[in-house]
Amino acid sequence: MAHTTRDKTKLLNRVRRIRGQVEAVERALENETDCARILQLVAAVRGATNGLMAQLLEDHIRFHVVDPDREGDPKKAKAAGELIDVVHTYLK
Amino acid sequence: MAHTTRDKTKLLNRVRRIRGQVEAVERALENETDCARILQLVAAVRGATNGLMAQLLEDHIRFHVVDPDREGDPKKAKAAGELIDVVHTYLK
Amino acid sequence: MAHTTRDKTKLLNRVRRIRGQVEAVERALENETDCARILQLVAAVRGATNGLMAQLLEDHIRFHVVDPDREGDPKKAKAAGELIDVVHTYLK
Amino acid sequence: MAHTTRDKTKLLNRVRRIRGQVEAVERALENETDCARILQLVAAVRGATNGLMAQLLEDHIRFHVVDPDREGDPKKAKAAGELIDVVHTYLK
Repeated sequence: MAHTTRDKTKLLNRVRRIRGQVEAVERALENETDCARILQLVAAVRGATNGLMAQLLEDHIRFHVVDPDREGDPKKAKAAGELIDVVHTYLK
Repeated sequence: MAHTTRDKTKLLNRVRRIRGQVEAVERALENETDCARILQLVAAVRGATNGLMAQLLEDHIRFHVVDPDREGDPKKAKAAGELIDVVHTYLK
Repeated sequence: MAHTTRDKTKLLNRVRRIRGQVEAVERALENETDCARILQLVAAVRGATNGLMAQLLEDHIRFHVVDPDREGDPKKAKAAGELIDVVHTYLK
Repeated sequence: MAHTTRDKTKLLNRVRRIRGQVEAVERALENETDCARILQLVAAVRGATNGLMAQLLEDHIRFHVVDPDREGDPKKAKAAGELIDVVHTYLK
């Protein structure tokens, strides 16, 4: 993983944001915040985790399988681009 | 939330386990672990977050809506039990 | 199920729309339509199925567990309303 | 789509099975079957739709992006295989 320094920083920021969101759930439970609010906080963790997964899968496709922006075969490039789109649509 | 002390401890342990799993993703990214392993770690965070969500929803139903084990009306008790089952099936 | 005639008609219309969407996938496969289009059609079936599930769960909560609009206890009514909101948020 | 005749038949059988499951939901609603049973039938449609999606994505990767069983570059082949595994894990 961590295909470039810039990419690594972006992914680490995402993971740290998720850690912060998990800590917010922890504090809310400790302070006996009401149920509905806690459910929202956990839903936010899930959303952010799906977003991270989608980004990792996109990077995996681009760096290890086929990068639509560098592939010489236009059909393969198109197919890889479609795959990346589906990943983002499905992990929202 | 935190309907009983025992319940609160159980939920907090779940959240702390998720925090530990997120920290494992962070370390894996810092150490440039290979993609497939990181994808597995993130999938584990997602699974654990769904498990927490299901538990919170079950508690919400039991403590604030209808507790199948305490409800006097047998039809309502059965319907609440079915709802809890669906929540666990859907958030696996 | 089918708590009222109006409710039954609404649910049946949803299911028939899903059947139509599944038939569109079938025709697309028979006609060897391109992959990306078929993936979109299947994603539409999934979205509509989640929507039906959310509606069925809302109806189940309202008719068999606690109806937020009829419940005498305001705390229970609020909790059931929050549950219905979570169901729709999660099954999008 | 429909990369081979054998593949096409397999996919069409899956779609027709889903159509049959949707028709079962329709009949259950018409016959006012109880809620819990209908929820199970709709969950079955969702599961089968995810299975079809996973199969279509695997085929898309194999036929249009990189086929792990035919790719000359062992790293690319491995990465495509991992991607297919993730698709099946995530769409269960």
